[in-house]
Amino acid sequence: MLENICSPLDLQNLSKEELIRLSAEIRKKILETVSENGGHLASNLGMTEATIALHKNFRSPEDKIIFDVSHQCYAHKLLTGRYESFSTLRKKDGISGFTNREESEHDIFTEGHSGSSVSAALGIAQANRLKGNDAYTIAVVGDGSLTNGMIYEALNNCAEKPLNLIIILNDNDMSISRNIGGLHDYLSKIRTSKRYYRLKKQTEKILKAVPLVGTPLLVGSKKLKDATKRFFVKNNIFEDLGLIYLGPVDGHNFEKMDIVLQEAKSKHTCCIVHMVTKKGIGYAFSEKEPDKYHGIGPFDLQKGANSTPTENYSSKAGEILCTKASADKRVCAITAAMCEGTGLSAFAKAYPERFFDVGIAEEHAVTFAGGLSANGLKPAVFLYSTFAQRVYDQISHDIAIQKLPLLLAIDRAGLVAGDGITHQGIFDYAIFSSIPGTEMDMPETYAELETAFSEGLQNDKISVVRYPKGKYEPYSTPSPMRCVQNLFTYSENIETAETVVITAGRLTKNAAEAIALTGKNIALVKLIRVFPIPTEELFPLLRNFKNIYLLEEGFEEGGFAQKIAALIRDKNVRIHAVSDFIPHGELSDLYALCGFTKEQLAKSFCEWE
Amino acid sequence: MLENICSPLDLQNLSKEELIRLSAEIRKKILETVSENGGHLASNLGMTEATIALHKNFRSPEDKIIFDVSHQCYAHKLLTGRYESFSTLRKKDGISGFTNREESEHDIFTEGHSGSSVSAALGIAQANRLKGNDAYTIAVVGDGSLTNGMIYEALNNCAEKPLNLIIILNDNDMSISRNIGGLHDYLSKIRTSKRYYRLKKQTEKILKAVPLVGTPLLVGSKKLKDATKRFFVKNNIFEDLGLIYLGPVDGHNFEKMDIVLQEAKSKHTCCIVHMVTKKGIGYAFSEKEPDKYHGIGPFDLQKGANSTPTENYSSKAGEILCTKASADKRVCAITAAMCEGTGLSAFAKAYPERFFDVGIAEEHAVTFAGGLSANGLKPAVFLYSTFAQRVYDQISHDIAIQKLPLLLAIDRAGLVAGDGITHQGIFDYAIFSSIPGTEMDMPETYAELETAFSEGLQNDKISVVRYPKGKYEPYSTPSPMRCVQNLFTYSENIETAETVVITAGRLTKNAAEAIALTGKNIALVKLIRVFPIPTEELFPLLRNFKNIYLLEEGFEEGGFAQKIAALIRDKNVRIHAVSDFIPHGELSDLYALCGFTKEQLAKSFCEWE
Repeated sequence: MLENICSPLDLQNLSKEELIRLSAEIRKKILETVSENGGHLASNLGMTEATIALHKNFRSPEDKIIFDVSHQCYAHKLLTGRYESFSTLRKKDGISGFTNREESEHDIFTEGHSGSSVSAALGIAQANRLKGNDAYTIAVVGDGSLTNGMIYEALNNCAEKPLNLIIILNDNDMSISRNIGGLHDYLSKIRTSKRYYRLKKQTEKILKAVPLVGTPLLVGSKKLKDATKRFFVKNNIFEDLGLIYLGPVDGHNFEKMDIVLQEAKSKHTCCIVHMVTKKGIGYAFSEKEPDKYHGIGPFDLQKGANSTPTENYSSKAGEILCTKASADKRVCAITAAMCEGTGLSAFAKAYPERFFDVGIAEEHAVTFAGGLSANGLKPAVFLYSTFAQRVYDQISHDIAIQKLPLLLAIDRAGLVAGDGITHQGIFDYAIFSSIPGTEMDMPETYAELETAFSEGLQNDKISVVRYPKGKYEPYSTPSPMRCVQNLFTYSENIETAETVVITAGRLTKNAAEAIALTGKNIALVKLIRVFPIPTEELFPLLRNFKNIYLLEEGFEEGGFAQKIAALIRDKNVRIHAVSDFIPHGELSDLYALCGFTKEQLAKSFCEWE
Repeated sequence: MLENICSPLDLQNLSKEELIRLSAEIRKKILETVSENGGHLASNLGMTEATIALHKNFRSPEDKIIFDVSHQCYAHKLLTGRYESFSTLRKKDGISGFTNREESEHDIFTEGHSGSSVSAALGIAQANRLKGNDAYTIAVVGDGSLTNGMIYEALNNCAEKPLNLIIILNDNDMSISRNIGGLHDYLSKIRTSKRYYRLKKQTEKILKAVPLVGTPLLVGSKKLKDATKRFFVKNNIFEDLGLIYLGPVDGHNFEKMDIVLQEAKSKHTCCIVHMVTKKGIGYAFSEKEPDKYHGIGPFDLQKGANSTPTENYSSKAGEILCTKASADKRVCAITAAMCEGTGLSAFAKAYPERFFDVGIAEEHAVTFAGGLSANGLKPAVFLYSTFAQRVYDQISHDIAIQKLPLLLAIDRAGLVAGDGITHQGIFDYAIFSSIPGTEMDMPETYAELETAFSEGLQNDKISVVRYPKGKYEPYSTPSPMRCVQNLFTYSENIETAETVVITAGRLTKNAAEAIALTGKNIALVKLIRVFPIPTEELFPLLRNFKNIYLLEEGFEEGGFAQKIAALIRDKNVRIHAVSDFIPHGELSDLYALCGFTKEQLAKSFCEWE
């Protein structure tokens, strides 16, 4: 049946039984594809019925549905003309794992970062209002995203009327791993109180029944009655912000979803529909361990995902921090809902008092760490590069200006496979190197990672340590490498070569192998300290070169290649870095796109000769 | 009396009458100093009694008081050993207009940006908890800052117990101008209901009195009773986040403040103390127009501040946008609580439907504008440079990746007099130029500003237009200037000179005058399009030069000077830009600090010859 759904219009005339069958087919397709290609599983399984209900009750693309983060958009893609192409999920030139404006008119925003959906939806809804267009705008937000401040900034601006804006709060009691904070506890209370709706009705009834005028207990004024009524009836945090609250509703029940969505449509005021779903539903393994099946690589559908932990930069970083924490009680770890992803699970278990998962709240994470640091602790903040883009002001204002030491561990730095344009880690260098007083290391080996963390926890600076997703892979260099004060390594042929390649991080492997391919006497420098450029130690070595090739797995503008080039005169200099946003694909695809394969590099290195 | 207060300890034994006299002396000193030096007036007058109460009830610096934004810290400074130096407020080498860690052990954080205080305070409080230190941490937050998402992220993490953290919500019913959003309405309701406290007590009493078991109206279960009780008693947005709420309390009443602060101290759980104050109180002019006296230049104490509007870059920008909006119904303006500061007051009055002040919520402002843009409107977002540091991710993720057009007007770009280290506008160039697809203009004349806005509203890019605080001042150049396609202007002597100075914006004036001072044949290029560098048009002109002097009123790392230097070989190149954070002072002081006075520049230009 699914293969015949070409557009959401095809859902209109389906019976309840057909909708249930359709859900099963969607789940099957998602399971087959994700087990093959990797991707987000549990969130997508959880949103199947709800997505059908949304497309049945609204008219996309006139009505605009925006998915926060959009890691729950697979059913949406399958229902909006992408059934045929779904097998190409996350592959080069295939469909994206997130909503993407260039892919479909049904994808209103290219999403990937948490918390932005309501702001964007409010903008779209306000524009409709100005244009006299009565179409609806719908933002679908997971409860995890509710820990993000931007959502709150947006909700605080939604009270204007009339406004055809509906916010679906998809409450599955987890963000990427467990959920955080006071608001989460609050939602739990609403959710677990099955009597919520009835109770509310009852208290209203009680209020009306109690003879307010003249009783000895109450002052008989209209004003007091109103005030008391408000206490009874307006008891919800969303209502406090001036919005209408509807729910909780079972997001797997088509009939109930129809009722609540129609009610929301009738209000013409921003409505929160509190929808409860089960993350991972419909596949035994992901129902049991939904967080394990949040984002996942290819796996065996019958056996479930392998859980042997693999050694990689993230796990090593976590291990190193554990060692540091055992030797120094001041060492703390802070993460923004990425405990597992950043390799901190063991730390969280071993040092629960010194581990702080603040929710999807990167800004708060950094400034909170500033407070810890100001009070004598040694905080290390772990963020993915792409999400670290959110903390420029906090690193500048709340750490650098305070002259506070901080270790900022940037995971997923460089090109990132699979997730695509919103998840590449190629901009953090440019922004953080523009903050006075930062130092930035880009370790390649685990030993270098250890050194960078050690120094970062000891010195009194902001130490940014950036490392990629995945694991270190050994390789051989054209000639042995020497290390200068943990600042950089260079190949021994540096005294005889005419050309030098200066690079950093894991791209050094390709550079070394490319040099071997050329068969030429080309020298290699691998920077470890990428900012400030260690000119005093490095530049004397560069005096005799004719050609300098600067190679960087990061965005060109504001990159280290550009900084080095700005300091060099009287040489041939070439900058080879990332020059644009980069879409999804395997790492090899992304490397090829940037000219970073060893074959491409070999060719490029020879162009001068 | 004030002159004898050397530390907060001196407050302990003062009678109520003495405290009232002290408040009057503090107000007098603040009024005298601000009318002389300029600064923040209304917020400081409003916080006088409350600051005394805080220092009386807590032991600074063991107990740590953090002021959000800290534009309300003058009484704090006067009570913590800075009476003598107070007359140097905002002057070079004088005391800062904000809290500053380098100035006093009582200044816990150098503050200037809204919303960070609670995160920092929570970090300090958590560190105390880990260290077994039972000192208190107090964050003082204006209700305006409550529109900021970071505060909410922090509040959502404050429910942990025990925690000696107290948040003073200073509710004066305004942020910098009027306040915004659902939460504000909600606070108003609490504030204006004088019966709030009593009511709450009464409803509890009612609840206890009503015979819950066995009445026909209610199901007689413990669970229901609890649930109902929750409805009666937990009716507050802060309590919903798991915090204790105390208030509202009159922030000008010492006795009441004593009671509520002692109660807060006894809880050992994060408490919100909702304090109501009157902004501008104690000076007739500022009581009447508190927003006019928020941040202000020197004025006549007897006559009040002059309100003749002066023509400057901000007012011109607002005017230009009005003209555009009258010709094109799609033009909208968005600001984050800076309507007046960014010159938008006339726009707000003329086009209220198309004007959006979202509160101190820069992140939301940009993504909201993205939604407007995605739905066919032409949004222009107006931010101060220093606050624009908060929207890197939103410009990247929610505008650039979406390929949406947007005009980002950056006011207060470059060095800013008075406010100091947290308010300099010298980093926006570096961060926004590292986003693919942005274009950045740095107009100097009002005509150039008009052109930049026109182009920015017409093209399909992210157009960043950055301009300084203050007004354009005409000057003469060594030889007439020619303009190339609105990209840059250059002096006619370009064909005969050996040295060229390349600069941009208002610094061009000093460069031109410095060239005149040298008496040498030095050419001048003023960039208007500062990113991407218009190499194709500019570089052919540079072929014959021996020396290129790159002069930039912005941070060196990631600046346009560095970008140009990276492209130039076989020349002498010098980069002259801002190399560190910059403290407070008059603009002439800041220029001197950076070597930007015409005398300094003249000397520097000659060093090559």
